[in-house]
Amino acid sequence: MGALLQEGEESPFIAVNEEGRSPFVLICEHASRTLPKKLGTLGLSEADLHRHIAWDIGAENVGRLLSRLIDAPLLLQRYSRLAYDCNRPPESPDAIPELSELTAIPGNRKLSPEDRLARAREIYRPFHDGVSLVLDRRAAAGLRSLVVSIHSFTPIYKGKPRAVELGILHDRDTALSSKLIKSFPNVEARLNEPYGPKDGVLHTLNMHAFARGLQHAMIEIRNDLVATERGQDEWAQRLSVPLIQAATK
Amino acid sequence: MGALLQEGEESPFIAVNEEGRSPFVLICEHASRTLPKKLGTLGLSEADLHRHIAWDIGAENVGRLLSRLIDAPLLLQRYSRLAYDCNRPPESPDAIPELSELTAIPGNRKLSPEDRLARAREIYRPFHDGVSLVLDRRAAAGLRSLVVSIHSFTPIYKGKPRAVELGILHDRDTALSSKLIKSFPNVEARLNEPYGPKDGVLHTLNMHAFARGLQHAMIEIRNDLVATERGQDEWAQRLSVPLIQAATK
Repeated sequence: MGALLQEGEESPFIAVNEEGRSPFVLICEHASRTLPKKLGTLGLSEADLHRHIAWDIGAENVGRLLSRLIDAPLLLQRYSRLAYDCNRPPESPDAIPELSELTAIPGNRKLSPEDRLARAREIYRPFHDGVSLVLDRRAAAGLRSLVVSIHSFTPIYKGKPRAVELGILHDRDTALSSKLIKSFPNVEARLNEPYGPKDGVLHTLNMHAFARGLQHAMIEIRNDLVATERGQDEWAQRLSVPLIQAATK
Repeated sequence: MGALLQEGEESPFIAVNEEGRSPFVLICEHASRTLPKKLGTLGLSEADLHRHIAWDIGAENVGRLLSRLIDAPLLLQRYSRLAYDCNRPPESPDAIPELSELTAIPGNRKLSPEDRLARAREIYRPFHDGVSLVLDRRAAAGLRSLVVSIHSFTPIYKGKPRAVELGILHDRDTALSSKLIKSFPNVEARLNEPYGPKDGVLHTLNMHAFARGLQHAMIEIRNDLVATERGQDEWAQRLSVPLIQAATK
């Protein structure tokens, strides 16, 4: 047991369909709103702990359905991003946010270096070690990997509504995103919206995909579109064919 | 024990002066020409195993002297890059080279997926896990880190002599390299020579520094200049003040 996770609490890394035969490896860093027991509620209300500040609403299910449709491995993170945002490095103030959108997170204030290190060592690092090992195994077996992370975003941010429905995010390597963006003519789809590399959201992909020379893209779906099972199924379907086509052409 | 390293063989990761108070973290992936016992000589002669194809001649000692001069942590890799080149991802054919410069490496030919995975899991991954943990600890403690890797290159490559004496290598983030290059007016110092990002040599720095938003640079010294202790000492001295200045201005 570590300083944060207690006996009976599971590893942050969950691999679904790890032997899936797609060249895509799907990642969902913000799948869950579960908090490690030791953190209690972080001083937040039940209502806040269900909001998008705690997790990417609908993203896990879109990922699971898409994983089945295209037979791809899906790598999920088990804990809320309020405990540690696994798409941020330990240097980032957003890794353990004291403020998320407009909500103060009392349980993340005035942490000691030991508290910060425990969050990084017991959530961030084991999750990314899991991702590394899956990619290492595939490389050793001579399998091609393209890495796609699945996220959702809130339709209203700091009081302002967002028109974009689907964001395809990239940093320097645009190979995959430039193909994907053409596949959604009837959707409000935009490159690097509502976030982009300057917001630090390409961390996971820069570390695991860019640094290894693997094609990659980050998918952001507006969460009102994937709040229900019907919406999750619709978007998994919508994403499946463009991904398969982007991998082959 | 793993499939590669045997009882009594040590971890690939060596941390020297880990509590050093410099903002710089020095890395030397090619410090050593030691081979894991199980690999024997990889089918090479003793003479070949002393050449630059096995390690970066002089780099470890430049790193150790520089670590002392500026009080910086130095992270060394214990095994020869002929076993696994820790500055390459498992996807790269150069990670476990079948040919290095003009020399065939018989012991790296026709490896099974299991052999490849053992090299990655027992050399590459533990080394980089060690680097990650050092950077995680520093971040949790609120310490700033700038990452500099120390390499050396052969004066004659594929029969052609090289005039450059000092290479300062960068990929997209030029903040540190653009300062350092100005500090060597009387040396044949060049940016992105004799290698650059297109040769895949920025792997370690892209993964550990760029992805975390840390300033970084790769230092390449022509190995005839650092083959002796006197040369190693000279270059550690030459590098020390420009680094200290680059961190403060």
